[in-house]
Amino acid sequence: MQILDGKKLSQKILADLKKKVSNSQKEINLDIILVGDDQPSLKYVQLKQETAKKIGIGGEIFHLKQNSTTEEVLSLIKKLNKKEDTTALMVQLPLPKKINTNKVLSAIDPQKDADGLSPFNLGLLFQKENQAIPAATALGIMNLLDEYKINCHGKNVVIIGRSPEVSLPLFALLMAKDATVTICHTQTKNLKDISSRADILISAIGQPNFINKDFIKEGAVLIDVGFATDSQTGQVTGDFSFDQIKDLANYITPVPGGVGPMTITTLLTNTVSIALKNN
Amino acid sequence: MQILDGKKLSQKILADLKKKVSNSQKEINLDIILVGDDQPSLKYVQLKQETAKKIGIGGEIFHLKQNSTTEEVLSLIKKLNKKEDTTALMVQLPLPKKINTNKVLSAIDPQKDADGLSPFNLGLLFQKENQAIPAATALGIMNLLDEYKINCHGKNVVIIGRSPEVSLPLFALLMAKDATVTICHTQTKNLKDISSRADILISAIGQPNFINKDFIKEGAVLIDVGFATDSQTGQVTGDFSFDQIKDLANYITPVPGGVGPMTITTLLTNTVSIALKNN
Repeated sequence: MQILDGKKLSQKILADLKKKVSNSQKEINLDIILVGDDQPSLKYVQLKQETAKKIGIGGEIFHLKQNSTTEEVLSLIKKLNKKEDTTALMVQLPLPKKINTNKVLSAIDPQKDADGLSPFNLGLLFQKENQAIPAATALGIMNLLDEYKINCHGKNVVIIGRSPEVSLPLFALLMAKDATVTICHTQTKNLKDISSRADILISAIGQPNFINKDFIKEGAVLIDVGFATDSQTGQVTGDFSFDQIKDLANYITPVPGGVGPMTITTLLTNTVSIALKNN
Repeated sequence: MQILDGKKLSQKILADLKKKVSNSQKEINLDIILVGDDQPSLKYVQLKQETAKKIGIGGEIFHLKQNSTTEEVLSLIKKLNKKEDTTALMVQLPLPKKINTNKVLSAIDPQKDADGLSPFNLGLLFQKENQAIPAATALGIMNLLDEYKINCHGKNVVIIGRSPEVSLPLFALLMAKDATVTICHTQTKNLKDISSRADILISAIGQPNFINKDFIKEGAVLIDVGFATDSQTGQVTGDFSFDQIKDLANYITPVPGGVGPMTITTLLTNTVSIALKNN
């Protein structure tokens, strides 16, 4: 079994991005919108900004109040869409429940959409259009597979979870690489049968240790997008029951240190791509 | 085995649309852009206009020359996007090869996109956004399943073909109904194994009689999106080898008279929905 080391690859990519940023004639800024008091989101947004700074990308965090309205978020997005020194922007999810997330994502200028979550970019991705900005987590996973020379062509891939932020753009990218992809979810009836036929199994449900050895084919590639903090031990855990399956798999992403670091890195990759395209 | 009669359902829906159109305070117009000399496309576009007229929907066919440029098509779309009496518009596919289809579809105002093929609408559909205009063929198939009370919840659905015009929006709509969906294509390695596990099998590849009894589970629902004219007999044929499989299936769409008539009907359903939304 080999570890797909997202931390290592991430550092390699960041070093490369740093060069590109310092060669850029224009300043590159990523603005981040955060709404409300969710502590993990606040920490995550700060980590994104710190990582950006390390490679020379600037930008502000716009922290709106918990009781902000959809219209207030939309109006800020419109401002940043127009603002010349905002190279790219993103909205941290999840938003407070009373805010219309789809409306917010739809309002982001697709040309400045660092996280690749606007419906326009998702649609372009499914049309295999190379102008599309792919969702950061999905592209991060593809880069990780590439780095370890894992070929997707003709492979049976099963994705557990159907979020438009991760699973669906990933589905588009894998299909573009000629994989045969199945999306499973809470209403799937024979999940173990389906997942244990997968050459590449990806789980993005956020249920610690949900996937045990009964779900897995020997020699499979396992990608763990789950990320949850165990309330008792305080440990960060993925969807896969790592110890149970590590000897069955050929490749596996650890949690932490697998998909997680790739997500921030790819957000910055997208930001730099946007900057270079608009130069 | 029961036939899923698209012709019959189509007539029922058209009668209903006719009432809605005559009750509408505003004139409803569907403009159609056709580029080039492809005879089947020309006939198809005329059929769309005739059907529209029968239920009181007006509109023009804009027939551009075979050697038109992408820019010429884009400029016409921009005009129609703005034109007040163009309720909705569509571009007949396939376009001549030197025209950039994605650019053309991206230029259509998503609010006037009768065929639901703009990337914005495809993205919204994947986000389960009820403001999305679904691609006409995909919605037509869903309406046919609904009419015969075929429940998709928890069903294993296999779609053969990965076009962004039919298969991908269909995938989004089926997943929204809680089906577990797999997309197969030319690079899929074990197509017979995968398709013969499907409760609902949909083929959209346009290869006459490609799908025989080896691909099918007894009791499956079979949806044939294929449409090809046999060069020897002149007969219209679908992807399924109908005579071989009709006794195995529980439900099947005939070709012609299944999915085909539903596509035009749903194009007009979308046009009327757009008109009523903008009223």
